[in-house]
This record gives sequence, structure tokens and C-alpha cells, in this order.
Amino acid sequence: MPEISKRGNRMPNSPIRKLVPLAEEAIRKGNVVYRLNIGQPDIPTSPNAIEAIRSLAAKVVEYGHSAGNESLRRKFAVFYKSIHIDLDYSDILITTGASEAITLTLLTCLNAGDEIIVPEPFYANYFSFATASDVVVIPVTSNIESGFALPPISEFEKKITPRTKAIIICNPNNPTGHVYSRKELEQLRDLVLKHDLFFISDEVYRELCYDGERFTSAMHIEGLEKNLILIDSVSKRYSATGLRVGLMASKNQALLQTALKFCQARLCPPNIGQIAAEAALDSPQEYLDMVYSEFLKRRNFIVKELNSMEGVFCPVPKGAFYTMVKLPVDDAEKFAMWMLQDFSYDNQTVMLAPGSGFYFNTDLGKQEVRVAYVLNIDDLRKAMECLKRGLLAYPGRLIPGATLAGVMNGKIL
Amino acid sequence: MPEISKRGNRMPNSPIRKLVPLAEEAIRKGNVVYRLNIGQPDIPTSPNAIEAIRSLAAKVVEYGHSAGNESLRRKFAVFYKSIHIDLDYSDILITTGASEAITLTLLTCLNAGDEIIVPEPFYANYFSFATASDVVVIPVTSNIESGFALPPISEFEKKITPRTKAIIICNPNNPTGHVYSRKELEQLRDLVLKHDLFFISDEVYRELCYDGERFTSAMHIEGLEKNLILIDSVSKRYSATGLRVGLMASKNQALLQTALKFCQARLCPPNIGQIAAEAALDSPQEYLDMVYSEFLKRRNFIVKELNSMEGVFCPVPKGAFYTMVKLPVDDAEKFAMWMLQDFSYDNQTVMLAPGSGFYFNTDLGKQEVRVAYVLNIDDLRKAMECLKRGLLAYPGRLIPGATLAGVMNGKIL
Repeated sequence: MPEISKRGNRMPNSPIRKLVPLAEEAIRKGNVVYRLNIGQPDIPTSPNAIEAIRSLAAKVVEYGHSAGNESLRRKFAVFYKSIHIDLDYSDILITTGASEAITLTLLTCLNAGDEIIVPEPFYANYFSFATASDVVVIPVTSNIESGFALPPISEFEKKITPRTKAIIICNPNNPTGHVYSRKELEQLRDLVLKHDLFFISDEVYRELCYDGERFTSAMHIEGLEKNLILIDSVSKRYSATGLRVGLMASKNQALLQTALKFCQARLCPPNIGQIAAEAALDSPQEYLDMVYSEFLKRRNFIVKELNSMEGVFCPVPKGAFYTMVKLPVDDAEKFAMWMLQDFSYDNQTVMLAPGSGFYFNTDLGKQEVRVAYVLNIDDLRKAMECLKRGLLAYPGRLIPGATLAGVMNGKIL
Repeated sequence: MPEISKRGNRMPNSPIRKLVPLAEEAIRKGNVVYRLNIGQPDIPTSPNAIEAIRSLAAKVVEYGHSAGNESLRRKFAVFYKSIHIDLDYSDILITTGASEAITLTLLTCLNAGDEIIVPEPFYANYFSFATASDVVVIPVTSNIESGFALPPISEFEKKITPRTKAIIICNPNNPTGHVYSRKELEQLRDLVLKHDLFFISDEVYRELCYDGERFTSAMHIEGLEKNLILIDSVSKRYSATGLRVGLMASKNQALLQTALKFCQARLCPPNIGQIAAEAALDSPQEYLDMVYSEFLKRRNFIVKELNSMEGVFCPVPKGAFYTMVKLPVDDAEKFAMWMLQDFSYDNQTVMLAPGSGFYFNTDLGKQEVRVAYVLNIDDLRKAMECLKRGLLAYPGRLIPGATLAGVMNGKIL
């Protein structure tokens, strides 16, 4: 039998999805599983998108343009104008979710063996996309004790080598909730220009900033234009993850024309998704307001609940809909598996994403999990009750030391 | 400005799509463009698929399982049973079109620098997917004069090196229409087992075999099981290319589990497409019969028309809905561009896919084009009229020599 490829063997299991078989088994045993592992909100998809799908007029579901449907690209350009981002429709390539946008960006900008700097903890699939593209991830570590503040730029500077080709950030951040300030973005711009790097800015959670944090797009930063690739998606804003419609955008046409060749090879993005996405961009403001207030409410609830559990520490995320949480357990992955395999309370349990998968050095996340606050308050309440009881019952529980508790108390709400 | 990646620069423009801007311009000038360049049939999408889209019940268009929706995978397994292919649902991974299935297969089976043997002319995007994956394409050449008969196995054998890792075929073939016989598949099996290679069989045109040719799947060939990856799609069978739903299937679970890690990274295939695909698998026999008889009629029409043009040679394709055609022109790509930019008859013109993109050695296809007979007879008649007149008017026309014409006459209908 021929051997599997080395890159196939190197590919990590998704920390977000690897426990799916255990969750399926828990459900088969009659349990309700609260899925806090994945960014799949229970919020209804934009009614405009649903209506567009149900009203499909076409008799032939055809291939579209490889760059995406022109009408959708033009509508995105109008949307960006409304948030002071100057993009022509020809600066935009529609992709099969932000996932494909990142993969195509890596293939377009980096050769095999080139390095990309990523603040960690990072969206776990950045590591997967890099591995699939034979690109080397170089992490710059932030930590939970400081609320995942961005490390000083000097830490980034130290990681630069002749193979460094790009920096990628997620703003607002998945999994930490960090919202990048204009000052931080300008510092990164200076670094990027100094070393002639590409800058990839994943802004799919743009609308979700809390506590008066103001969102600044990398597209708002002067001087970055030719180095910058914006990543976006309709998945989160319109609660439409299953459509698989995202985009990459850049003012660097040479880059986009190269990316288009990769787009041509895969023919086109999903067409029904594009039709729905185009309608979603007309979603009423009340819908967007509802989405925002739901996530704010959920964040407030979950941060308070988590920090009330003995030995648990949850910094306050300022954006997106995730938070990294430190648990008083020997190994958060073992704990997450145990919650699905061995624990239930009132026939309910919780699915968490083990933190190690969000770090390059997996040991760093050994006591952490990522929680996606994507369920309604009622479900979140039940989930938190399960988690609290699970933590008390878990055989690998560490009794929290007084010092640690003290340090943590200084950071909580 | 940082440099575009080498693999980005190496990526070919799709011969199927590179002329799109010229076609758009021709349309802007008021012309009708008959698109024979791309496998986009004008046949209505399966009514079952359309109905499923219009009846969408879900309020939230969610992420699905990374392997694809279980209900769809199970339905595919039932479908395969009906054509004597023994696959469990767990042997199947749903992908974003066959395009993604091929990319994931290459990433799973081949390292950067590994070689894949492909009979040429080949589906042009095989070369693109290989380039994107840093895989080296090694062609085994067939030629139009012999009707693209499969070269002897000894020609494959000659191309094998220590880096050879796989063979890929398309059966029935895009672009040649060749249908692989059981004997040919058994010869390839012997070669694959002898050298411990993966065998990738792209069977998306399975239902379209003409003139009594009988389709044999690589899945029907004994002994190949652990080496074989089947590629499939709903695009062509149900005229639903825009859904972007395909699959890869294998009895080699280690291979599939590795491919699943790549699937997890991109989260899931398009969900509305999957719902539609599941319904399409229940399409009535009358629909499938209509599709078949339409393509048969179109093939018969187009082969006759093409061969009636002076200096044109079109072998009789035995399957799929393409044919490679030799034209009496200096350069078929220049001719295809000229047809869009400089020629029209009665405000109509024809878009063709230049043949060179279907060959590794692009010179081999310099006088050839691929014609997709995807339009109704009425449109095909108008398209052929345009082509005939275009060929007579084209400044780079070669007057066909008597010898060449004689050779060709021996092969035509």
C-alpha cells in the first residue's frame, strides 16, 4: 500500500472538530450536548438570505464567474464604502468561505518553506491551512494572565528571518476576543513595510466589538495598500456559516490576478450561497442590532458565570464571540473528552474546544479551552451548570492554589 | 512590494476560463456568444434539486459535518450499490465539487516534488491542482490522429521514477471522450500494484457512454481497493455545476482519515448544495434519460458538422460531452481570441477552449480546441455556422494539404 503524504501526516486534527465522534456518541446515549466548541451561532440566518434561497428563479444552477458573481462583488464594494473602506469590485475575489480565502492567499503569497508570523493563541485552522500549503507558522505568544494583550512589536521583530513572508492577524480575534487598536495596527504596518511582508487581516467578526472598543480595519491604515489582503465572510455577520461564502480583497492587482488563477482552477464558489449572500447584504438594521445585542448579552453572562467557578479564569473578551478560559484541570483536552464520554448532568453535557490546538506550542494551552458563546442564554445557563458540576466531579481536577486564585481575582470582572 | 510566490507565478491560466474577459467584451458589443468552452450544459438542473432548494426548511444555514452530511453520504452509498460499487457511507467524503476532491487527494497522497502520471490531453485543471500542490505532472501523450487511443502501458512504464506516486485518469475522458475498457483498467491496475502507486479515477461523466461502450468503474477492478480514490460530482449528472458538490471515496480508511483532517480545516462543504444534491440523487429516470438522449443527439450533430468543414478533424468521442478538434489554423488560441475580439456573424460568435492548455507540452495542442457540446441543437447549429464562417475568414487559416486531408478522411464518420 502506498504511503500517505508527509504533509497529510503533519496535518493537525482540528481542535474544534476532533471531538465530534465523541459528541455523536454522547447524543446516541440520549444526552443533550451544548456545543460551545464551534462558532456556529443558534441565531437565525438573515431572513433576506433565507428568502433569496426559497425564491430561486434559475432553472439551471450554473457555474458562476471564477472571481465570484459580479453583482455580489459590486454589492460588497458598496458595503465597504459604508464603513469607509475603499474597494472597487475588481479588488474583491469571492471564495468558498474565509477558509478558502486564507488558503488561496497563502498559496499566492508564500512558497513552500516560507514563514508566516501569527500571534498565538490563534484560530487553529491557520495552522492547518499553513500545513496544507507547506508554510511554516512562527508564533508570537500572548498569555491569558495579561488578558491576551498583544505582545510588544519587538517580539514580532525578533521572529523575522529571511524566510518571513507574511503576518496574519484575526481582528477582532478568534479565540481571544482581542480588538486591535489603531496604534497596534500602525505598529504592525511599520514592521510589515520595513521588512517588505504581506499583511493578512482576517476581519470576519468586525461588527462584534464591545465596551466601547472601536473597530479599525487594516484597510483604514495608510501605506499598507499593496501589502494588505483583507479576509472576510458572511458566515458570522448573517449567521450563515453553511453558505460557505467569503472573500479576499486587496488593492494589489498583481496579487489578485495571481489568486484568480487558483480560483479558475476550482471553477467558482457555491452559487446558491452567493445568491443568498447578496441578499444578506441588504439585511435590515434591526436584524444586525438583534445579532449584536444577543452576543453582548451572552458575553456578559458567560464571563460572569465562568469567573464565578472556583479556579476558573476568563479574561473579558472585547470582540467576536469566543473566549479562552483557564480551567483547574490537569489537561483540558482530557477534560473535554471526559465531559463527552463520562459525564452528564440531567442528561446534558458540554462540548469544548481544547486550548492546546490554538497554540503552536501545544503545552501552553494545556489548561485552557476555547468557549464559543453561540447559544441562547437559556442554553448557556444549562451549559454553565453542566460545566461547573463537571469541573467539580472531574478526577483530574487540580485544587486551585491560593496564589493563583489571587492573581486571577485581580483580573476578573 | 513583496513578491508573489513562485507557485503563484507557475499557476497556469485556465484555458477554459482565460478568455472570459474577451467574451464579456464581445457581449458588451452586442454579440451573442455561444459558449462551447466550458462544461456548462444548458440542460435544466434536476427538478428534485431545484425543489429542495426552494423548500428549504432550516432557519439557520449551519455548518455541516466536515465529512459532509451523513444523510447525503448514505444516499451516495445506496446509489453506488445500484451500479455495483461497494462503498459504505464512511468510505465517502463530500467535497466542494470534484475540484476540491482532487486537491485534497493530491495533498493526502503526494508530497511536494512527487510525480503524478496523466494521459494527455488531460482535463486542464489537473495541471493547475498539481501546480498548486507543488506536484509534478508527467504526461503520457495520446494523439488526435489515432482518435486519442490510450497509449500502450509500456509508455506509462517508461515514465515511472522513484518520485512517481500516483496515476490519474478521467473516465469517460474530458477532453477526449475516451471510455476506458476493462482491459485498459486492468493493465493500469497491474502497473499501479507493481509500483505501489495511488490510482485516482475521476468518473464524473460515468452516465455518458455512447455507441454501446460499456462503462467500467475503477471500483469494479479487483485488487485496486487500497490504492484507489474515486472522484465524483453531481455537477454533470444533474446539470448542477453551481452547487459545488462532489466527493472522494476510497476503501483505504487511513487515506480517508488523513483527507478528513484537510476537510476539518475548511469546516464543511456548502450546505444548500448538499441538500440539493441529496434530492438530486432521487431524480426520476425520465430526467436522466432526457439528459442522456440530449447529449447523444448533440454529439452526433456536432461531430458531423465539424467534420464537414474543410480541413477540420474531429474524432468520434465515445463518452462525456467534449471533443478535441483539429482546426486548419496557425494557432488555435489566437483563433479563439480572434473569434471573440474580431469576428462575428449576424451578431453571434463562438467561445472555444484552446487545446494547448490540455497538454503538458503546449505545442502539441496548438492546432486543437476543445468543444463542449453543452448547448441545444438549435444553438449548436448557429455556433457551427459561426465557426465555419470564422474559419474561412480567419487570417491565420492554413490551406489544408491534400495529404493531411486524406489521413483525416480515414478517421471521420
